[in-house]
Formats: sequence, C-alpha cells, structure tokens
Amino acid sequence: MNILEIISKKRDAKELTKEEIEYFIKEYTNGNIQDYQASALIMAIYINGMNDREITDLTLAMAYSGEVLDLPKFGTAIVDKHSTGGVGDKVSIILLPIIAAMGVPVAKMSGRGLGFTGGTVDKLEAIPGYKTNISVQEFIQNVEKIGISMIGQTMNLAPADKKIYELRDAISCVENIPLIASSIMSKKIASGANKIVIDVTVGKGAFMKTKEDAQKLAEQMVRIGNLAGKEVICILTPMDQPLGYAVGNSLEVIEAINFLKGDMPKDLKEVVLELGANMLKLAGKGENIEENKIRMLETIENGEAYKKLLEMVENQGGDSSYLEDTTKFEKSKYISAVVTEKIGQVKEINAEKIGELACYLGAGRLRKEDKIQPNVGIILNKKVGDMVEEQDFLAYVCANDEMKLREAERKILEIYKIL
Amino acid sequence: MNILEIISKKRDAKELTKEEIEYFIKEYTNGNIQDYQASALIMAIYINGMNDREITDLTLAMAYSGEVLDLPKFGTAIVDKHSTGGVGDKVSIILLPIIAAMGVPVAKMSGRGLGFTGGTVDKLEAIPGYKTNISVQEFIQNVEKIGISMIGQTMNLAPADKKIYELRDAISCVENIPLIASSIMSKKIASGANKIVIDVTVGKGAFMKTKEDAQKLAEQMVRIGNLAGKEVICILTPMDQPLGYAVGNSLEVIEAINFLKGDMPKDLKEVVLELGANMLKLAGKGENIEENKIRMLETIENGEAYKKLLEMVENQGGDSSYLEDTTKFEKSKYISAVVTEKIGQVKEINAEKIGELACYLGAGRLRKEDKIQPNVGIILNKKVGDMVEEQDFLAYVCANDEMKLREAERKILEIYKIL
Repeated sequence: MNILEIISKKRDAKELTKEEIEYFIKEYTNGNIQDYQASALIMAIYINGMNDREITDLTLAMAYSGEVLDLPKFGTAIVDKHSTGGVGDKVSIILLPIIAAMGVPVAKMSGRGLGFTGGTVDKLEAIPGYKTNISVQEFIQNVEKIGISMIGQTMNLAPADKKIYELRDAISCVENIPLIASSIMSKKIASGANKIVIDVTVGKGAFMKTKEDAQKLAEQMVRIGNLAGKEVICILTPMDQPLGYAVGNSLEVIEAINFLKGDMPKDLKEVVLELGANMLKLAGKGENIEENKIRMLETIENGEAYKKLLEMVENQGGDSSYLEDTTKFEKSKYISAVVTEKIGQVKEINAEKIGELACYLGAGRLRKEDKIQPNVGIILNKKVGDMVEEQDFLAYVCANDEMKLREAERKILEIYKIL
Repeated sequence: MNILEIISKKRDAKELTKEEIEYFIKEYTNGNIQDYQASALIMAIYINGMNDREITDLTLAMAYSGEVLDLPKFGTAIVDKHSTGGVGDKVSIILLPIIAAMGVPVAKMSGRGLGFTGGTVDKLEAIPGYKTNISVQEFIQNVEKIGISMIGQTMNLAPADKKIYELRDAISCVENIPLIASSIMSKKIASGANKIVIDVTVGKGAFMKTKEDAQKLAEQMVRIGNLAGKEVICILTPMDQPLGYAVGNSLEVIEAINFLKGDMPKDLKEVVLELGANMLKLAGKGENIEENKIRMLETIENGEAYKKLLEMVENQGGDSSYLEDTTKFEKSKYISAVVTEKIGQVKEINAEKIGELACYLGAGRLRKEDKIQPNVGIILNKKVGDMVEEQDFLAYVCANDEMKLREAERKILEIYKIL
C-alpha cells in the first residue's frame, strides 16, 4: 500500500478500503505521509466525496489514533453530549448537573472557545478555584464519587483529527459535511461515549447556516454512529440570536447558576429540556420525552440540580460561595447600558456578530495562545420579538477598556435590527 | 487576494482570473504559499479542470517565473522543436543540423534524460570535448556565427514549472493533459520560442499511451499557443518500438552521424522529415511540406547537413574526428548478440521496456544525481515486421558489467514478441 495509489483512487472518485483509510491516518499521524500529500487527498475527498462506510472508517481511524477514554465501569447508562457550537451556549453547565442529579453518570470533557463561539472549559474556569485540568484518574474517581465531573481535554484524544482539522483550515476544506461529521464523531468516540446526544445548532451564529445543511450533518452523524455501533441522537436547535441573555464567561456562569435556581430564559430552557430529555431516554431513564422534561423541571424546582452543580464545583476545588452569591463574581471595570433612539420590535440580533463583539472585548480568543478575560461580555436586555420603547436599554456592555466599551456600544446599535 | 479564496474557487469548479493565477505562481515560487496549499489547488485543478484561458494564463505565469531567453536578434525565422519523449529518440541531433544548413537559425536548449527516456544533452556529451554548459552569451554568439548551437538548460527557466512538476509527482497529479500541456509550453516559451514544432509521441514507449490522449494533448498545446500568441504545430509520431536501431548515448550519436551520412532507418527518417518540413514551413522557408522534405533529403545527400553537425561540434569544443570515424567512440566492455530460437515475425518490441533496460545497463538515470555510462545500451537488429529465421540475431547488448549483460540478454528475449 502507498499514499500515491490512495490519492489517485480518490482523485478518480473511487472507494477507499478500510485498510487504505487506516494506513493514511496512521502514517499521517506518525509523520510518514507529508502534509502536501494529505492535503491532496483531503481535497480529493472534499470534491469527490466518501460513502458512509468510508466516512465511518475514517472516523474510527481518527478516534483510535491516540488515547481513548475507557468508561466501562459506568455501564451502559453513560451518555455524552456535544454541541456544534453557538453564542451564549451555557447549556452543558446547566444540563449536566440536572441529569447527574437524576442518576445518569456524567463524565464530560469539554473544549475551549476559538473564534466567535465560547468554550465550556473557559466558562467553568470563571469560577474561582475550579480545576479543569485534573488527571483522568481523578476525573473518573469524581464521577464514581458524586456522579459528575466536567473537565478540559487533558488526554491526547484523536490527534489525527487535530492534525487534519488544522490542515483543512489552511487549504479551504473546512465546510464539508462528511469531514465535519467525522471530525466531531471521532472526538466523541475517543472520549469513550457509546451514546451521544448532539445539539446541531443552525442559523447565523452557528457553523451550519441553513436548516438543510444542519439536517445533512445530523443525518451523517447518525449514520456514522449506526455503522460504528454507537447510539446517536441529533437535535437541531436555532442559533440566530445568542442563547439566553448573557455572552461572556462569568456572565454565562451566573446565568447558568440562576437557571438552576429557577430563573429560566425561554429559549435556553427549551434547548436544555430537549437535549436532556433525549439524554435520559438514551440512558434508559424514561422513554417519554415530555415526561422526561417534566421530571427535569421537578429536579430544578426541588433544588436537586443546583445542589449537584454546587457539589461538583466544591469537589473540583471551586469556591461555591460564588454560586450562593453571584454578586461575588468580579465585575468588569466598565458596565454601560446601550440605549436606542428607535421604536419598534427587535427583528434580528446576529449571534455571530455578538460573539465576535464579545471576543473583541476579551471574552474569547482569536488564536489558541490568547488569554481571555472572564468578566467581559454582553448581556442582552431585549431579544428577538421584544418591543422597544423610546430610550429602552437594548443591552449592557461589560468591558475593561474604555475604547473597546465605546466601540461595542456603537456596534450593538448596528447589530440590533429594529423595525 | 489570498490563497484560501483561490483554492476554494477552484474547489467549487469556478474559473480563476489571470490575477489569481499569477498571484499563486508568484507567491508559490517565492515560498510564500506552502506546498500543502499548492497541493490542494493542484488537486482541485486536476479534478475540476481549467478552461483554455486559465491554462494559458497558468502557462505564461510559469514561463515568466524565472529567466526568459531573449532571441529577437534572429528575427521571426527562429523555430524551436520539442518532443514529449521517447526511446531511441536522436531526432534533434539529426534534424537541427539539417534545418540549420537550410538557413534556419537553431538555438536549442535540451534536457537530460530521466527514467526510461533519454535526453539530448546526455547524448551530445558522449562526443568527447563537446561542451553543453556554455554561457547564454556564448550560446547566442554561436548561433550568430554558424547558425546553430545546442546546449543544456543552463538558465533558470520556468522555476515555477519545476516546483509544480515535482509536487505533482508526489501527489499523483502527473497524468493530466492540461497540466502536462502547460508544463511543456511554459518551458518552450521561457526558452524564447515564438514558433514551435512539437513531436507528440504516442504508444507504449511514450508518456501518452493512446492516440486519443496524444491528440488531446496536441490540441491543448495548440490552443495555448494561439492564446499566447505563439505558432504551434504538433505532429503525432508512433513510439511503440524504439526509434531507429540504437538506444544508449554514444550508440545513438553514431546512428545520428550515420543518418546524416546517408544511412537512414525508415522510421527515424519519417519522423525527421515530418518535423523538419513543418519547422521549415513555420520559418517561412517553404509552404509545401512534401517539397520541404525533398529539399531536406537533398541537404543530406549533398553533405551540407553533416557538415553543419561537424561545424557545430567543432565550434563547441567537440572532437570532430569521432564524427569522421565513428569507430573511435569507446566501446563498452562487453558486446553480445542476442540469439533467438524462435522463428516467425517480430510483432512487438516494447519501447518502454527497452528504455528501462538501457537505463538498467547504465545509459540513463533513475534519480537526477545518477551518473550515466555513455557507451552502454542496446542496438536492435530486428524491428517490428521483420522476419526472424532460426539462430537470427535479435539485438546486441553493450554493457560494462557481466551480470547486467546476462540479465539484459534474458530480458530482450522476453521483450521481443515473435509469432
């Protein structure tokens, strides 16, 4: 077997065998296949496509290219959750304590934010003392002890996917549904999940801009799951405007805490319940989605979910007094309300633009090396559909730099479409 | 403009502008575009194609990526000649002295052999003293003085083509007619030609294995020529068996000398006359192809063509006594006649296999760094269509290594198909 034969087969739109795909992934990860050869093959895959069998073999080869988290001691009840990314997406911090409180073990490795979307790890780190980089052993012990642990990607999971993803980014081969699907699924399989609920976000603030593409991606991931022997449920959720009201790390943590205390923004509540009800179903904790939702709400109302979050934060070194009193979170240097002259109804708040603005204020990073500021961001006051009266506040900007504060105020007036 | 946009346009089968193509060639030659990015673009070009305008722009951008030979002092009469490569192809050494003797200035830069095809420069260097690496100034002075000079590629011609060709070789993107056409044409344009006759070889010993592909390549080069303001004539010539009888550097030079002395193998004669008659036409030395051929034969018969070769060799430091008495060429250590037991007619002598065998004996190089042996090779005694009697000699093997001699004898019996 050699890479030239493999490249020429896919160049001519032929099907690659499992062995050929495994050979490529192994030798590329080892550095025996050059970037320019991988690049030619990926372009050929992008243009000529792969069938489901090929994509599944690619996914599995990438999943097993590095360490794989081993979670058999938690039996068949363990369910992973993934989101294709959004703005203001604090769903994991709310949802996972709820289902852990309902008896589903949660062992969750999350990523950091890059570009306009935030990352759960950055958000958790906004809680003083919370450790996201504990050892895998401690991570598993935490799940055994209290039923939940949420950490960063401390393991070398799917290194082939990482290498290919970076290459795709440099050769205009990112926006390809089979390649996106196998990238997501390879990481999930490497993190030990046999059952996965995936939130496929769709809209202006999501990677998938249209419902058709989101649907294709969802179907592709389900088919990979079936062929790879994993149970996968995909839920399409809208991501045109930010989810909930807060965008920015500590701001979103506060919103998540308040949610578990009973203050639930409508859109966020819908997403949390829909994903959670499906996770419970996959975990064998209730076939009926609507009944599962009702039981989730009960778990919030009786304080069990909030207690589980508190327990997890304490167990991982976090200062739980910040949860009890969220006013303890350090405020940004400047907080200013954005006032509009316009009267009417909010028609659009472009989530991607709000995400980019939060990033500009310091809530996110453009490059992996960038440091983030946990306390900056945007708190929306009006959402799509809300009426705006004269001198109404549209949003609050939290910034540590006056110049950036002014620029953000100006931008928010542009981003809100009021008619 | 940036490379990611250019890649994604061709990935989506869109037309690239002249500026985009020039940007890619310039920045790739400069090293500002990475190999893996060029690789993705070339694969996209391979699969999605380019129209004639794009291919012409690519050709011109590559032609002007380095030095360009400037030949205006020879007016409009100068005509270049190129062959897509073959086995036993000593056409340039015969043809160019003929047309130089007929008043067409010849300023010819040739390549070295690689793989199973030989190179004119290696053959010329088999003449003791002949200098192929003179300066461009001296080269042009020689043409002014005696009307002909044949040297190696001493200039940095079309470096972008060289870089892209090497990359194509490493990513399974060699066999693509638009890319082959633009590679050939870029080198020809960089070597100063405005009028070009191209020998497109077709068959088992050629790069183009079928007449259809050879025809497509020829048409593509003519279209590039038209759009680039160059007059191009392509002649398809068969290359199933080796051209003439000799394969190997000094062996082919001897055959070329004998040709100009009047000993003309039929197939070689046809190719020489066909190409030459078209070169004369392009040079404005006669519209009628058949009349041109007759005048070429006269130039051989009256000794003018041979005299021109002699003059060129002397003018470039070569020892012309070797031309006067070809027995002076150093013989290989072993020369053996290959005798067959079979009786019948020769049906096939695979030119590529004979070329590889000559290369194995030391006549060619597998890598650019390899040294060649001028005196080894194969002299056919029987060609396709010839009758073979019992104990007839099929060919002679000239070798410097006994083990290789025996192996070559064995291989020749395999290569000759006799029925």
